[in-house]
Amino acid sequence: MSSQPSETKAARVTSFDVAERAGVNQSTVSRALAGSPQVTPATRERVLAVARELGYTVDQRASGLRTGRTDTVAVVILQGPEDKAPSGNPFYFELLGSICEAASARGLETLVSLQSEEGRLSGDYVKRGQADGTIVIGSARHSSAWTYFQQLQRSTGNLAFWGSPFDDARWVRSDNHGGGRIATSHLLDRGYRKIAFVGPLGTGPGQFAERFSGYRDALAERGAQPIEASSYPDGDRKSQGYHAARDMIERDGSIDAFFAASDRLAFGVLDYLKEIGRDVPEDVGIVGFDGMSAGTISSPPLTTVAPDLAKAAEALLRMAIDGEASVTQRVKVRLIERASVRPT
Amino acid sequence: MSSQPSETKAARVTSFDVAERAGVNQSTVSRALAGSPQVTPATRERVLAVARELGYTVDQRASGLRTGRTDTVAVVILQGPEDKAPSGNPFYFELLGSICEAASARGLETLVSLQSEEGRLSGDYVKRGQADGTIVIGSARHSSAWTYFQQLQRSTGNLAFWGSPFDDARWVRSDNHGGGRIATSHLLDRGYRKIAFVGPLGTGPGQFAERFSGYRDALAERGAQPIEASSYPDGDRKSQGYHAARDMIERDGSIDAFFAASDRLAFGVLDYLKEIGRDVPEDVGIVGFDGMSAGTISSPPLTTVAPDLAKAAEALLRMAIDGEASVTQRVKVRLIERASVRPT
Repeated sequence: MSSQPSETKAARVTSFDVAERAGVNQSTVSRALAGSPQVTPATRERVLAVARELGYTVDQRASGLRTGRTDTVAVVILQGPEDKAPSGNPFYFELLGSICEAASARGLETLVSLQSEEGRLSGDYVKRGQADGTIVIGSARHSSAWTYFQQLQRSTGNLAFWGSPFDDARWVRSDNHGGGRIATSHLLDRGYRKIAFVGPLGTGPGQFAERFSGYRDALAERGAQPIEASSYPDGDRKSQGYHAARDMIERDGSIDAFFAASDRLAFGVLDYLKEIGRDVPEDVGIVGFDGMSAGTISSPPLTTVAPDLAKAAEALLRMAIDGEASVTQRVKVRLIERASVRPT
Repeated sequence: MSSQPSETKAARVTSFDVAERAGVNQSTVSRALAGSPQVTPATRERVLAVARELGYTVDQRASGLRTGRTDTVAVVILQGPEDKAPSGNPFYFELLGSICEAASARGLETLVSLQSEEGRLSGDYVKRGQADGTIVIGSARHSSAWTYFQQLQRSTGNLAFWGSPFDDARWVRSDNHGGGRIATSHLLDRGYRKIAFVGPLGTGPGQFAERFSGYRDALAERGAQPIEASSYPDGDRKSQGYHAARDMIERDGSIDAFFAASDRLAFGVLDYLKEIGRDVPEDVGIVGFDGMSAGTISSPPLTTVAPDLAKAAEALLRMAIDGEASVTQRVKVRLIERASVRPT
């Protein structure tokens, strides 16, 4: 092994070294690298050649102090005790992946911070010169954390939220109401008649309540009544879904479909139905929400409502980086048909 | 909405503002905030109080230029066309989550960059003053990308790899050989007799070859021969596993177990067995590798070999940040028993 960790620092090349070797002033090096028209093409070429030869790279901190930009977006992921890595909440990491891709397409780096209510919360990345904007992702359950970020948003721009329970914030959300309608109409179209809703509403996310309202409206159009499964606020989402389904079926064995407010809730419903030997989709249909890739692995693969994460990422970046203010944005959702709903 | 995106910049408070209000020199403010003993406790208290009052925060870029530290670790995730977000390779994001947690515990931020062979590769984060070290995560399939990072590691320290195909690099890996042994012995202990190995070896990752050698050695100890399923290099891992299992069973219907070199391969094997009506675990047992949380959702839930991701993250940080050189590290693995292997 020839690599030596200290090599880089010892060999660190500055713009002054480039200037000396190229026979110009340091300020000319800066101008040449910035593409300034004050530098002749010949000089620029010479400076670039020397910079390459010496392995000179621009220090982004110094450059950032001059330009006022960091070309970085900070992403805060709020985690509860039940969302700990490595299992985490895979949906957040799928959204994070989309944000990294969208950021990269704009020439931005992504600074990721996992934070929890119990730990130290921080959204000061712009003020500290570490980012040009900050995106906060999390479930509405982390209420004290959201209160902190909501206050921060009042005193600063360049903050965008996914999952905030506050309506008067700058956020991006799924078209939750539309998604609830799509899921419910799909189940009705495929002949299911008693469709129960699974998802804690009382203390839970506003997003779940929005999905519920779409479900309720789709039922009302066909003269049907909503059936709300009991909430189990404890445990992870999968366990909540399992208990809600068990309670529901024990209460009314004629339930023939579930609309679960998240895919992880739906996985728990699937578990319970398998346990009691109900065939999905023949006896009971299920639609989830989130479009998680894990839904391709469940048995049967889960039909789900998927938000357009690429569009969500772009909208969050516009809000956080470009400072698009005073707006809330909904991203479109679509039904991904897998195999937990019977075919026509 | 009262928030105005430009508010922060307009109101930006500098150390000179703090100095003026506190009635000291700017250099005293810097020393006070850095905890210098040259400043009396009383002055330090006054400076801190004024800084709080004015909402002054230290600009990390300027601070970094002074201290030479960024308190940031860069993580490059290599993606192939088949690993695109949002589905991505969930294992990398589980490892990323562990790195973010371990970094946070050390007071470090995490800068994430998704890169692909087709796109521009970059690992110059330390040189550009954006990170104190860089971790590269990816599968060995991205061979031209690994060649780039391998060359970079020769000329610089503070680079650590997960997934590199090069043995003479500074990397952290799972105890792949041990994991292959554990998986295979477990299947033998539970009475399976004809255990096939699923995972492309020829052009594939060194890690898969290491898992295969553990499998082969465990069989040899009991006088059994390895049975290698055909490789399907195209498609995603799940599809590769499906085709390998189909080919294997069509070739030899008496195969009664599979050790798959990754969980995603195992999910494809499960799919094929379900399709032909073989009961898992009664007729056929399966063990995967990676400990992915998605394995709790498959039917049946997947028994798997899990690397200790928290330890892996710590080892990668020691290599990347502390410049722990000339070493390669193995992290321990353990068997997570779920339900794809029959009970004793």
